[in-house]
Amino acid sequence: MKKPTYIEDLQQWVNEFSFSHEVRVRFSETDMFGHLNNTVPFVYFEEARIEFFKSLGFMQDWTDAGSSTIPVVADLQCDFLQQVYFGEELEVCVKAHQVGTSSVDLHYLGRKGNGELCFVGRGRMVQLNKLTGKGEAWSEEQRNLFLSRETLKK
Amino acid sequence: MKKPTYIEDLQQWVNEFSFSHEVRVRFSETDMFGHLNNTVPFVYFEEARIEFFKSLGFMQDWTDAGSSTIPVVADLQCDFLQQVYFGEELEVCVKAHQVGTSSVDLHYLGRKGNGELCFVGRGRMVQLNKLTGKGEAWSEEQRNLFLSRETLKK
Amino acid sequence: MKKPTYIEDLQQWVNEFSFSHEVRVRFSETDMFGHLNNTVPFVYFEEARIEFFKSLGFMQDWTDAGSSTIPVVADLQCDFLQQVYFGEELEVCVKAHQVGTSSVDLHYLGRKGNGELCFVGRGRMVQLNKLTGKGEAWSEEQRNLFLSRETLKK
Amino acid sequence: MKKPTYIEDLQQWVNEFSFSHEVRVRFSETDMFGHLNNTVPFVYFEEARIEFFKSLGFMQDWTDAGSSTIPVVADLQCDFLQQVYFGEELEVCVKAHQVGTSSVDLHYLGRKGNGELCFVGRGRMVQLNKLTGKGEAWSEEQRNLFLSRETLKK
Repeated sequence: MKKPTYIEDLQQWVNEFSFSHEVRVRFSETDMFGHLNNTVPFVYFEEARIEFFKSLGFMQDWTDAGSSTIPVVADLQCDFLQQVYFGEELEVCVKAHQVGTSSVDLHYLGRKGNGELCFVGRGRMVQLNKLTGKGEAWSEEQRNLFLSRETLKK
Repeated sequence: MKKPTYIEDLQQWVNEFSFSHEVRVRFSETDMFGHLNNTVPFVYFEEARIEFFKSLGFMQDWTDAGSSTIPVVADLQCDFLQQVYFGEELEVCVKAHQVGTSSVDLHYLGRKGNGELCFVGRGRMVQLNKLTGKGEAWSEEQRNLFLSRETLKK
Repeated sequence: MKKPTYIEDLQQWVNEFSFSHEVRVRFSETDMFGHLNNTVPFVYFEEARIEFFKSLGFMQDWTDAGSSTIPVVADLQCDFLQQVYFGEELEVCVKAHQVGTSSVDLHYLGRKGNGELCFVGRGRMVQLNKLTGKGEAWSEEQRNLFLSRETLKK
Repeated sequence: MKKPTYIEDLQQWVNEFSFSHEVRVRFSETDMFGHLNNTVPFVYFEEARIEFFKSLGFMQDWTDAGSSTIPVVADLQCDFLQQVYFGEELEVCVKAHQVGTSSVDLHYLGRKGNGELCFVGRGRMVQLNKLTGKGEAWSEEQRNLFLSRETLKK
């Protein structure tokens, strides 16, 4: 594995994850090359990210019709470390790597049942104000929730 | 092919389609059995149905934020006649088979480049009033648009 | 609910399901109308069907590279009874309604956490011989596995 | 737009694309936030990448059952520059940015009808030998095909 630029020390990076979500590879998520199609880990990232936010207590606001803010994905990337097959159960881990004014850089890790990493990734989310279309700063409470759960980059 | 119950005379049924939309099978739409996954024709049905409605001038209203009605799928079915593979270009045809008070029974046909049918289907759509959640009768104008385009069952 | 033609007595039909599989609605499975997109229950049907077959001990053969047979979907249908939303946990039930020589008519039911049905469906699967492309009769063992688990239509 | 690290001079980078593929946003590709779901550009990248390879004459080999090699995605990333909506027609451009021994770094660009960029991205593909699971060096012919079409980074 050629180390992605967003990982400094792989072992330490792996150890810092404390939230995980389990997915099982669907048949419809494979392709004619017999493995998981490369577009699907991003679906897993979204599912795990939302569960991560739910665990912090954020998501409830964002999906409320009256909410003035929504989370928007600014960028996403994934490094595919080994092939994944139909029926495999994967642990998809999420952590907040760095918290900005109105954004957060989330890191992701996909792990097989035997403990081997199969994909890693990252992506920045921004909390947008629906009316202005601009970034809305995290509240003190939201910022503390990130800090409480994660080992953030200083 | 065991004739589906919604088709009386196959040749006549096929001849009655006058609207068609072209799709090309994506790699991500195949599965590990090497063919088009069985869930994807329903994606094609939706895409062709919307193009069909657009050609009638309906869709513009429904996706307008201020629209008081939305179209909802009441049921869907598909008969898979032969396997479909990556890269194939398919013609997906749509017709209004029967128009009810606030619903329409749409029929679908998927055809390969060589003219052979690969799947056929049908499904009822209902125009719902967003506030009441009940069916909203077609306007005289909408009804005429269906009649102008299609050979309807009397 | 207008009763689908494949259900005779709804209460009895519901009671006959003994296998169920849980899914949670993903964010990426919703559409701009704010609910579960109509193509997704077919993805759930496939996932639940495979888990059902696994529970009978069939699937292991079919996904083996050396297997001489594969299961193919002959037809599928779904009746949408009420709208489903992001994050809902659904129980998707499967039963073998009728076993043919080389095919099986599977019935499906989707239920919300409060016990209400949200969609029902059915579809015929055929066990195909990979070489001949024709139906391959169920073995006595396979037939008994279906019978052991389900209340079949005589 | 905060310039992604894989773009040096944006205008020059944009000008270097000579291959493009058109897609129209499907209803089923939107989500409850009313826009294109963030996982879908990767589906568009795959579709455009395959059309790009087809235009070079590569893809035909890889999907041949007897082929000894397959293309595998090593990594993928996407920067989302503005929201995309149902029904929009997008031009998805692809170019080979850098050709390695057995891999190629592809760059992607999504553009709206009015010429504005909506997403950009990149990802490395590797040509794998099916038997060894290792990278298989590009043939002289393949290498020339890349060079003929693209402005490569020296």
